[in-house]
Amino acid sequence: MNKITIFSPNIYAGLHSYCSQKPQTLEQAIKDPLPSWNSGENKSAIISFVESVTDTASKDFVPEIERVAVFDNDGTLWSEQPLYFQLFFALDRIRDMAENHPEWQEQQPYQAILTNDMKTLSGFGMKELMEILMTSHAGMSTDEFEKFVTDWISSARHPHFDRPYTDLIFQPMLELLTYLRSNGFKTFIVSGGGIEFMRPWVEDVYGIPRDQVVGSSIKTELVMQGDNPVIIRKPSIDFIDDKEGKPVGIWRFIGRRPILCAGNSDGDLAMQQWTAAGEGPSMMLYVHHTDSEREFAYDRDSHVGKFDEALDVANNKGWKLISMKDDWKVIYPFELK
Amino acid sequence: MNKITIFSPNIYAGLHSYCSQKPQTLEQAIKDPLPSWNSGENKSAIISFVESVTDTASKDFVPEIERVAVFDNDGTLWSEQPLYFQLFFALDRIRDMAENHPEWQEQQPYQAILTNDMKTLSGFGMKELMEILMTSHAGMSTDEFEKFVTDWISSARHPHFDRPYTDLIFQPMLELLTYLRSNGFKTFIVSGGGIEFMRPWVEDVYGIPRDQVVGSSIKTELVMQGDNPVIIRKPSIDFIDDKEGKPVGIWRFIGRRPILCAGNSDGDLAMQQWTAAGEGPSMMLYVHHTDSEREFAYDRDSHVGKFDEALDVANNKGWKLISMKDDWKVIYPFELK
Repeated sequence: MNKITIFSPNIYAGLHSYCSQKPQTLEQAIKDPLPSWNSGENKSAIISFVESVTDTASKDFVPEIERVAVFDNDGTLWSEQPLYFQLFFALDRIRDMAENHPEWQEQQPYQAILTNDMKTLSGFGMKELMEILMTSHAGMSTDEFEKFVTDWISSARHPHFDRPYTDLIFQPMLELLTYLRSNGFKTFIVSGGGIEFMRPWVEDVYGIPRDQVVGSSIKTELVMQGDNPVIIRKPSIDFIDDKEGKPVGIWRFIGRRPILCAGNSDGDLAMQQWTAAGEGPSMMLYVHHTDSEREFAYDRDSHVGKFDEALDVANNKGWKLISMKDDWKVIYPFELK
Repeated sequence: MNKITIFSPNIYAGLHSYCSQKPQTLEQAIKDPLPSWNSGENKSAIISFVESVTDTASKDFVPEIERVAVFDNDGTLWSEQPLYFQLFFALDRIRDMAENHPEWQEQQPYQAILTNDMKTLSGFGMKELMEILMTSHAGMSTDEFEKFVTDWISSARHPHFDRPYTDLIFQPMLELLTYLRSNGFKTFIVSGGGIEFMRPWVEDVYGIPRDQVVGSSIKTELVMQGDNPVIIRKPSIDFIDDKEGKPVGIWRFIGRRPILCAGNSDGDLAMQQWTAAGEGPSMMLYVHHTDSEREFAYDRDSHVGKFDEALDVANNKGWKLISMKDDWKVIYPFELK
């Protein structure tokens, strides 16, 4: 590499980012910080917003420490169809655990998973889902769970694209994260997904440090194993970082109201409203899944990432609706290769 | 200021730090990063540790993103006698609220506070303490609570020193925080104190951003007041960040095991043990309150900051016991003036 690359310019940049992205030279970045975004109202609005909050002469100037940007993960930074990727992880965990659970062959919800009985699986409600999540996510130490996640994320492949799940991140959003960070923003993930499911890989993939991840969690407890203190994951919900939980999670973990908020579903509406209710300037972005060819097209009727009430609010309030089909030149980093 | 100052060198440095500290020039800092520490084994050990984990040629080298340092607050970064300062805040809140609660004149635990009945006050147990905390800390929005804290911290004075509480921070620990950050460490507070009590002032006072504070919390809830989403503080404990809660809190908020941990009491023992149990190099520091003249001398029998079991463990394990009397040239920043 002879030229300075501007993707993932900091210490948090991992190997994955370098491998999966086509490096942009410094000159290109200065010319266009968002090269995978088509020119248009949305791209202009983002750049205007960043320029105004970073310009000390602007009435909208925001001190660097207050430049907090929050991003939903599923459907906002990476894809979420046909199921949340974490659910694929849970199903794979159940399959791996089945060897030690012969009783599961005749016991739901496990039987349906082990026999790939899609009809029964698709009829499962919250009760079965919670059992699947708790069985696959609890009952081990945090170190053991991290190894499960790390092994899975480096080997599992998406059923439709036949690629690692971390290939299915959105190139334009990576550029936005980098652009914001290079303008003094601190970027956070605020996801309904599990906090410990995300942390092992988000540093490499998004350049977002572990401590800048807010997510759902189960209870944990410190246990002494002999002289060795170990944190054990318990089969009990601690916090659901979704809907009204998102502003609560932001306040608990970050302690400051964001000035930029990006989401894609009704689950993000509360944090968008709370961001918008701040006193200073703010920008609310909604990724709209409009591209049935390159990704998936869905909104009001989707079982995953339902975007209905929030779509009306976004339209009414004039929040920025980002059309994946119209606003993005590429969806995934691998398209650049 | 013509010379480069090295205290609080980053954007998080606030006015308070500049006002309360005697700026050190860059040349002085290079010569001695910990000028308020007396030469000796402890100072040498800290510098050796930092040099070894930052030296890429060392077997103990630690990548920058893994350089997590956690600090207890009460008794470690600032004083905690004769009572935790947050308790003084709670008592002052009760006195301010009394105007709207005439019934408190004849009702405990309020009567004792309002009449300054120290005998009754000192007999209060956990039940009365919880009632005082909930009455003073819950039932308002997070914005309102922040204003109470900000107003109090800028006006209240310590009964013994007759100074703002934020004057009673430890100059040598400020130097350690700055030294660590200038060597790529990310510094966090991990305190049994209330997370929302600390966040409004720790950025200015310690140069630690709000999102790098872990603490105890009460439950919060998002409530729509008309069109305005507001986070309300509820009179119910959410999380106690003390003892075994500290490693749990670190894992929840930071998601990474620290390599340096500083505390001063039995409440910090679990996070010290968990830090020590990491695979790589680690440093455990215990501030020992040994200076009855300049600060307070207490350990095994103290009602605040009891340091008994942890003192034995620290001695057995060879963790660094920092004697405030012997290791520190000055205790508070105002001594430098």
